[in-house]
Amino acid sequence: MRATRLHQAGDVRVEDVADPRIQQPTDALVRIVMGCICGSDLWPYKSQPRTGNPRQMGHEFVGVVEETGAQVTSVKPGDLVVAPFTYADGTCAYCRDGLHTSCPQGGQWGVNGVDGGQGEATRVPYADGTLVPLPVSEDSDLLPDLLTLSDVLCTGYHAARTAGVKPGETVAVIGDGAVGLSAVISAKLLGAERIILMGRHTARTDLGRDFGATDVVAARGEEGVAAVRDLTSGRGAERVLECVGLEDALVQAAGVARDGGVISRVGAPQYPAVPYGFPEFMRNLTLTGGVAPARAYIEELMPHILGGEIRPGRVFDRTVPLEQVAEGYRLMNDREALKVIVRP
Amino acid sequence: MRATRLHQAGDVRVEDVADPRIQQPTDALVRIVMGCICGSDLWPYKSQPRTGNPRQMGHEFVGVVEETGAQVTSVKPGDLVVAPFTYADGTCAYCRDGLHTSCPQGGQWGVNGVDGGQGEATRVPYADGTLVPLPVSEDSDLLPDLLTLSDVLCTGYHAARTAGVKPGETVAVIGDGAVGLSAVISAKLLGAERIILMGRHTARTDLGRDFGATDVVAARGEEGVAAVRDLTSGRGAERVLECVGLEDALVQAAGVARDGGVISRVGAPQYPAVPYGFPEFMRNLTLTGGVAPARAYIEELMPHILGGEIRPGRVFDRTVPLEQVAEGYRLMNDREALKVIVRP
Repeated sequence: MRATRLHQAGDVRVEDVADPRIQQPTDALVRIVMGCICGSDLWPYKSQPRTGNPRQMGHEFVGVVEETGAQVTSVKPGDLVVAPFTYADGTCAYCRDGLHTSCPQGGQWGVNGVDGGQGEATRVPYADGTLVPLPVSEDSDLLPDLLTLSDVLCTGYHAARTAGVKPGETVAVIGDGAVGLSAVISAKLLGAERIILMGRHTARTDLGRDFGATDVVAARGEEGVAAVRDLTSGRGAERVLECVGLEDALVQAAGVARDGGVISRVGAPQYPAVPYGFPEFMRNLTLTGGVAPARAYIEELMPHILGGEIRPGRVFDRTVPLEQVAEGYRLMNDREALKVIVRP
Repeated sequence: MRATRLHQAGDVRVEDVADPRIQQPTDALVRIVMGCICGSDLWPYKSQPRTGNPRQMGHEFVGVVEETGAQVTSVKPGDLVVAPFTYADGTCAYCRDGLHTSCPQGGQWGVNGVDGGQGEATRVPYADGTLVPLPVSEDSDLLPDLLTLSDVLCTGYHAARTAGVKPGETVAVIGDGAVGLSAVISAKLLGAERIILMGRHTARTDLGRDFGATDVVAARGEEGVAAVRDLTSGRGAERVLECVGLEDALVQAAGVARDGGVISRVGAPQYPAVPYGFPEFMRNLTLTGGVAPARAYIEELMPHILGGEIRPGRVFDRTVPLEQVAEGYRLMNDREALKVIVRP
């Protein structure tokens, strides 16, 4: 089959790889209907050294089950399904607690004999724990929205949930990428009264306003902090959703947080340490969040999509066929696209 | 009057200072009956450069109100009171939310024209917001226990409360100082089933067992982490109370935490940044805590002392008269005493 592999920074190719096949009785084979490119794919796309063992890329997909192992009971051939961006057994103590990303049996797409999501098909380990059936057909207009359940919507929602957003509160969202915009959707779902989106790209922050942002602050650093303070009578936001992953964003997050507030980080850290020493200790700031256990949120969020209440698929502004996935990476890396759908 | 002043590292003296007097209608004058030395007093005691303006020391005290300003209504001359380790107005949005340490009108003892707690008396700003009457006489045997409401018990309790300790959980406490031991008391009050105290000083960890620790781990670093993992079937503790304030303790805290767990720090940070980057992000660890708003907890904790359920005053193992306060500092700094009462 055809699949996307990253050979080194900037060198992403669609190549022939072995067809996936059932290896364990808990596996399923899924033909991928729709995949996409993640902001986190851009980190290796920017920096990966040349490798003789190029990794299959992609960890977000909607697809159709083609075959299941003998022990799989929750999905059957023909089912349209969505997969979270990590697989998990669904039965361990962590999975039962909703922390599927810590499942000892779980893992990532694209490594260890499991295919990626930017390809024609993949073997899905622990299909019962991993896949969620979608009650629509594969030509549904809702497919892009439902694809966001793989990662980006659930990641934004994880930020809002772990931050503890409650009705009536003021929330600051740092970052106007697809995760930041999903965090805006999520803060609104949880009842935030005021949602301040911090980002500099007008097309994105305009979409953020459509999603529920009540204010947009384009300034960054000290100037951005001052602007948020001005908007909040000097006090700052009770919850801050950090959707970037850089140290500067953490500093900004602390700057716009109210004393006693919560900062939730869902941007994959590109820093070794969090610059929260004595001053942040004196302000009783809490840092939470982490990699999102997307699987835990899919059933909770799906009804909002099916009912038309939210349209998170609007974060996709381009679609490329699988064979042109490299162009999709270029578009996102050059910020010509916000988030790109990949169609096998 | 006589008061303790720190001239430079290792040079703490009892000297004559101006008698305090009422300056604002919200002030009270308090004659100090019992003060003490805090672990945090040892940081300047170890490192303070020589200064021509030596700071009055001490921020924990029980005393008797001698005079009140015209607007003070909650205490009157003759009342025995306890003071939290910062004063606060008690009326602002932060105080109403229980975050008295962020009160814009609040401040620290021993600076800006306010006396310290290791002396004969002090002016108390915002007496209504700050002082809490004690329903005992000044010769009560409970005075040392009630003195812990100034700081150390409330600080340990802040760790347990912000960590979200719930009945039946496993809690690791890092540090066997007076705060760590108070955190043990607090975790038990909140219903923790298993309390693992990490500390190397047998006399202290023995007291920790009396306070409710179910296990003691003397090892530190990787060895200590492995020991806690062994005690918890490999999973670690749901809540970790970091009562030291050093980077090594934060690393140890992450090591003993269960994925998805909460680390609460109440040791004053002696580090510029928290070493929680990508690995801790992938484990969904939360960092909370901070300087304790002791005032918020005094009424809640006092009944446990008055009823004899807890005896936090057992952290005091020495008493010195005010004139010998320097010996008290030496005893604590040389670890010959756990925590020292100072009697004017």
